[in-house]
Amino acid sequence: MTTAETTPTPTAGSTPSTDPAALLAEMTLEEKGALLDGADFWHTEPVPHLGVPSLLVTDGPHGLRKQVEGGDHLGLTDSVPATCFPPAAGLASSWDVDLARRVGEALGAESRAEGVAVLLGPGVNIKRSPLCGRNFEYLSEDPFLAGRLAAGLVEGVQRQGVGASLKHFAVNNQETDRMTVSADVDERTLREIYLPAFEHVVREARPWTVMCSYNKVNGVYASQDPWLLTRVLREEWGFDGLVVSDWGAVDDRAAAVAAGLDLEMPSSGGAGTRRVLDAVAAGTLAEADVDRAARRVLELVARAQPGLAAGGTVDLDAHHALAREAATASAVLLRNEGGLLPLDPEHGGTVAVVGELARSPRYQGAGSSQVNPTRLDDALGALRAGLAGRREVVFAPGYVVEEEAGDPVLVAEAVAAARDAEVVLLFLGLPASYESEGYDRAHTRLPDAQVALLEAVAAVNPDVVVVLSNGSVVTMPWLHRTRAVLEGWLLGQAGGSAVADLLLGRADPSGRLAETVPLRELDTPTVGAFPGELGHVRYAEGLLVGYRWYDTRGLDVAFPFGHGLSYTTFAWSDAAVEVVDAAAGRVDVHVTVTNTGDRAGTETVQVYVADPVSAVARPAQELKGFARVPLAPGESRRVRVALDDRSFAWWHTARGTWVVEGGAFEVRVSASSRDVRARLTVELPGVDVTEPVGPASTVAAWLADPQAGPWLRERLAGSGFATLLEDGQHGEMMRAIPLVRLSRFPGFPVAEDALAGRPGAS
Amino acid sequence: MTTAETTPTPTAGSTPSTDPAALLAEMTLEEKGALLDGADFWHTEPVPHLGVPSLLVTDGPHGLRKQVEGGDHLGLTDSVPATCFPPAAGLASSWDVDLARRVGEALGAESRAEGVAVLLGPGVNIKRSPLCGRNFEYLSEDPFLAGRLAAGLVEGVQRQGVGASLKHFAVNNQETDRMTVSADVDERTLREIYLPAFEHVVREARPWTVMCSYNKVNGVYASQDPWLLTRVLREEWGFDGLVVSDWGAVDDRAAAVAAGLDLEMPSSGGAGTRRVLDAVAAGTLAEADVDRAARRVLELVARAQPGLAAGGTVDLDAHHALAREAATASAVLLRNEGGLLPLDPEHGGTVAVVGELARSPRYQGAGSSQVNPTRLDDALGALRAGLAGRREVVFAPGYVVEEEAGDPVLVAEAVAAARDAEVVLLFLGLPASYESEGYDRAHTRLPDAQVALLEAVAAVNPDVVVVLSNGSVVTMPWLHRTRAVLEGWLLGQAGGSAVADLLLGRADPSGRLAETVPLRELDTPTVGAFPGELGHVRYAEGLLVGYRWYDTRGLDVAFPFGHGLSYTTFAWSDAAVEVVDAAAGRVDVHVTVTNTGDRAGTETVQVYVADPVSAVARPAQELKGFARVPLAPGESRRVRVALDDRSFAWWHTARGTWVVEGGAFEVRVSASSRDVRARLTVELPGVDVTEPVGPASTVAAWLADPQAGPWLRERLAGSGFATLLEDGQHGEMMRAIPLVRLSRFPGFPVAEDALAGRPGAS
Repeated sequence: MTTAETTPTPTAGSTPSTDPAALLAEMTLEEKGALLDGADFWHTEPVPHLGVPSLLVTDGPHGLRKQVEGGDHLGLTDSVPATCFPPAAGLASSWDVDLARRVGEALGAESRAEGVAVLLGPGVNIKRSPLCGRNFEYLSEDPFLAGRLAAGLVEGVQRQGVGASLKHFAVNNQETDRMTVSADVDERTLREIYLPAFEHVVREARPWTVMCSYNKVNGVYASQDPWLLTRVLREEWGFDGLVVSDWGAVDDRAAAVAAGLDLEMPSSGGAGTRRVLDAVAAGTLAEADVDRAARRVLELVARAQPGLAAGGTVDLDAHHALAREAATASAVLLRNEGGLLPLDPEHGGTVAVVGELARSPRYQGAGSSQVNPTRLDDALGALRAGLAGRREVVFAPGYVVEEEAGDPVLVAEAVAAARDAEVVLLFLGLPASYESEGYDRAHTRLPDAQVALLEAVAAVNPDVVVVLSNGSVVTMPWLHRTRAVLEGWLLGQAGGSAVADLLLGRADPSGRLAETVPLRELDTPTVGAFPGELGHVRYAEGLLVGYRWYDTRGLDVAFPFGHGLSYTTFAWSDAAVEVVDAAAGRVDVHVTVTNTGDRAGTETVQVYVADPVSAVARPAQELKGFARVPLAPGESRRVRVALDDRSFAWWHTARGTWVVEGGAFEVRVSASSRDVRARLTVELPGVDVTEPVGPASTVAAWLADPQAGPWLRERLAGSGFATLLEDGQHGEMMRAIPLVRLSRFPGFPVAEDALAGRPGAS
Repeated sequence: MTTAETTPTPTAGSTPSTDPAALLAEMTLEEKGALLDGADFWHTEPVPHLGVPSLLVTDGPHGLRKQVEGGDHLGLTDSVPATCFPPAAGLASSWDVDLARRVGEALGAESRAEGVAVLLGPGVNIKRSPLCGRNFEYLSEDPFLAGRLAAGLVEGVQRQGVGASLKHFAVNNQETDRMTVSADVDERTLREIYLPAFEHVVREARPWTVMCSYNKVNGVYASQDPWLLTRVLREEWGFDGLVVSDWGAVDDRAAAVAAGLDLEMPSSGGAGTRRVLDAVAAGTLAEADVDRAARRVLELVARAQPGLAAGGTVDLDAHHALAREAATASAVLLRNEGGLLPLDPEHGGTVAVVGELARSPRYQGAGSSQVNPTRLDDALGALRAGLAGRREVVFAPGYVVEEEAGDPVLVAEAVAAARDAEVVLLFLGLPASYESEGYDRAHTRLPDAQVALLEAVAAVNPDVVVVLSNGSVVTMPWLHRTRAVLEGWLLGQAGGSAVADLLLGRADPSGRLAETVPLRELDTPTVGAFPGELGHVRYAEGLLVGYRWYDTRGLDVAFPFGHGLSYTTFAWSDAAVEVVDAAAGRVDVHVTVTNTGDRAGTETVQVYVADPVSAVARPAQELKGFARVPLAPGESRRVRVALDDRSFAWWHTARGTWVVEGGAFEVRVSASSRDVRARLTVELPGVDVTEPVGPASTVAAWLADPQAGPWLRERLAGSGFATLLEDGQHGEMMRAIPLVRLSRFPGFPVAEDALAGRPGAS
């Protein structure tokens, strides 16, 4: 068993008190100001004479990236070895909250063993465009799915007495100009798309910290936006932790403190503190704001002490096994024509493994989340081991990963290998330089050399299985040249063996897409509105992100959100909907799922809600619940998915609240966003969003009102207007006019001043 | 010859002076205030003791709608007979500015003969969605085309000494909630899409009046928006006329006067004037603002006197002939498989004319623009006359226009007629109730009964020619069941004979689409963002309106913008581009067009500009010039289309100005937006939009600067940061950081304070 040594807790001096309020009372303003700035790149400031220790925080969301002593200033290029779990883009395809929780526990354990107080993740930003260079660190295009999985991760990490840092709050959906761009987005879209994943995690998993994003939201830096950091995050959602800046996200430090940004990281070398103290001296920042931020730092320190004191050891073999389990659950079998997969490991001809990525896996993305893995499995080795002594395996690299242009020698070698083989396992994917923190993707294509290789190989052997490594969606115009496609995303350090397990049928594919694979890049929602211009990016598509876009516009896609194949088959039956509490919007959805094949497998029940009649435009459907259902051959289970009022609600911007509009909703029980197995209807009382009739209401609204209608009709009786109102098209035109405007028309029989006096007026 | 009598000018009293300044000096504040309100529905207030007469203004854009004495209050249901020219949706398809001018002259002549001082039109609002109920009154989805045609109309009207009223200013692109909705649209989209047609007409045709729209623009009523009515309209574009409210568009009368809305119509019965005077008394409105508005009314009165004094007679036969010419030029031959059209009028079998609309034409839209025509041609009568004694014509109505459900008896009769005929002329179209001022369309389909009739008829006779009557685009999933389609839009009172002329080959079809025909309603740009909700409509698609959307997204369409067939054929050759004045952006485009067929016809050369590399997202291409080219058989002409700096410019919101960004542009010489005949390249110096390097600029911008770059490199030399910046992906991530942010990082060798001191800093 491999173990890592427990690192001693990096406290300094004695600890006379850990009560934040008591400590705060003993601190000078200067000490409090200092506490709001980092000590260096990864540590908070200690207060030695009060025994307040420094805390160590580190990246990142899918593995620990703790800077080694003597590394570069930013800790980017070297870190202590840690288990590299599948990055978010992979893990999200598991649709497995429990798995996310167990991965979180492992991350927390490794953090605690290294004396880390806070692990900087997970990231729940929405995948607005496949072109975002950091999509591999994000979970989904759907806020419901992203929120559930992230809550699992946070709960797992924090069970170990280590804090999580939910990031990047908020509306950080691109890398281009990420430190200055203003994400211009209407409030309903914020509330329904970009904030709910954060909201769910804050409410349900209570992260110790939230990390603000670099960008501006509607013109205000997230790092200094009181609406975002205080009004929404704390007052509405009840967040009780600390807000930390993304590294370098602070613009106006005093404004940031006032807005609710507690801790600036990394250290600004005292510059931030100086500005805070100057602002207090100048009277532009309240000392109470400094106290509040300092108290939150002290509270975080206090929160971290039990975990740091406990330390612990890590079973790295067990973590590698968990990484392999997670990778297996994360890959998505997109296509399997004629059941070509799984390969029979016992019998059959030569297996040609083609593609450098089979030998040199790409298993995580570049940037601050890059982990130095404890081990690294490659698919070629795993396949050779899995087929050893039974089927022959030949390998040809086919291409150089970072080369755009094909190498004729490598292609010829690959074609030769493919021609003589029974089946070709062709490993393709994005070079690391195609996607990274810090810049966005140029396009959604695979490198030309790889597509040309596929064409050449498929020309001599049609039985081609493509295995993909990519941190965000690639378009697949070459799909028809394949028999099967296994979408491997980035699968972490055990991805190679997981892929072999899936290809050889030692495990059943159970992944489901957490993001739509479009047919063309031009079909994506943000054409012309990504990554913005002149400092602004307009969220033009509004609510229609991901499948909401493709479904609402009826666009064909390559593979829909939620899609994923299995080696076994499932039957769905007896879908039903049960209103548990109509007033509270609580509805249970039931369906029976049966494994009708002869191998174990896992089906995922997805529940989408559609609102066919509404006062506002709603997406065609929205995911509001799901359940993973592992089933032995022949096994049957009755599955329940619980919905609540938020499942049916939309954000009423004018009222500043969620509303469930009374009426009928369609509840779809589906195997993907395009594979609806049952359509059920549920009626909810909800609320009436009709505005009360007033002078500015239309004539139609007046006439429809039980009190105002008769009043108005009586006054119009006999006038030319009464005739006009009944005159077909002219009538329809007239009825759409606000009554107050019509009251000013020459000859109109009701004076403007009389409108306020009608019966029922409030 | 039919003539209308000259109506005496409706002046009142003597006219001691028409000098506005002199008159103004003699008026009391109360009199000036009264002048800002209408006298009734269609007249301005006179000032009898000063000899200032009342003016009569009337609808509308494609024919005079002068209320008869004793009509309803709004004059909607009865008006004096006037020539009904093709509504804008038809006329725009002519792409013929000279024709628009001649139609304008005829409208002006009829106005003058009726003592009308101002004709309320034309409307140049952009067709944002085919669902807008009033699209028939608007010209195009393209601001360039709309602006040119509207300028022709305004010039024509005003040549007669009658004022035009350019409407509805601005961003009135829907009927739903039109009196209250806020059109929320970013400034670049305003400047590049929604304002340019107004701008062109104001600058080039100098309309006497502009009519403000009902809606709000970004939260402010157009009727009281100083930015729109004064800053843009007058200060930027030089408008020197009067701004009149759309009928009932005034919300806050005092604010409207201050913003630049001079005249409220119709009469508010003194309510508006009272508010103006109250505001002056309260000091919230400057008397100078009242003076300015009153002076503009007096100026309009003065401007109108010569025309009113001249009066005149109208040759209604000549106007009917012009209406027929305009209708002929407005219809668009969309499809003509195997050259089924034109029909040979001399020889051939029975012609089945099917469809009630052949007998009962729909030739204009409903609402304030509805004209009482002097005559009305129907296609059935015109076809019978055209084929009399040569080919047999049978008729079956097939459907009842306003019925959704089919009538089996009518269908059977139509099928019988079609079965025995050589060819079927099937007249289909939108019932009047489908599109009207005052409400929007529910969908883009023809009535189900009509589509079912087409299916039934085509099943027994494949040689079906569909002739359409519709004020806005219909989707055509039934297209494959036809051999030919003539898009007739709404063609005015002579549309029936014009259609017969085209079908029988007495005229050549020369119309070109002024709006794209999409394949599906779900393909249109505004899905989910039309007509808005809760008082707001978000112009989500931004610049991507009409073909800009379909082309930028690479969407297939049924028929592209600019498309239209002829009975003859044209060859294009020797396209060339000539930079006339590079600094001024003046570029001439030349192409030779030859009529290679054996009949006369008219080709339309369309010039689109594409800007492949830009600091901002630009539509795939934009129409920037066009030329109609009538050609005898065998004739050849060298055509010149002149471009100017606006042809290449985009609106730089931050700088508040148009910029031509230096570099290469592609100039496409095209027969439609999808039928490019030549791609030419032009290089223009333009301007450099790069911002000067400052502390907030990225490291990459600093390094690229000739002065700041070496300065920064020198200071970084030997540091860990220098190494990181060269480290592939990490380097790219680092280079994207604003230098001021990096300067606060621990260990960064340049202090924030030093950045302002670098060489070249201003």
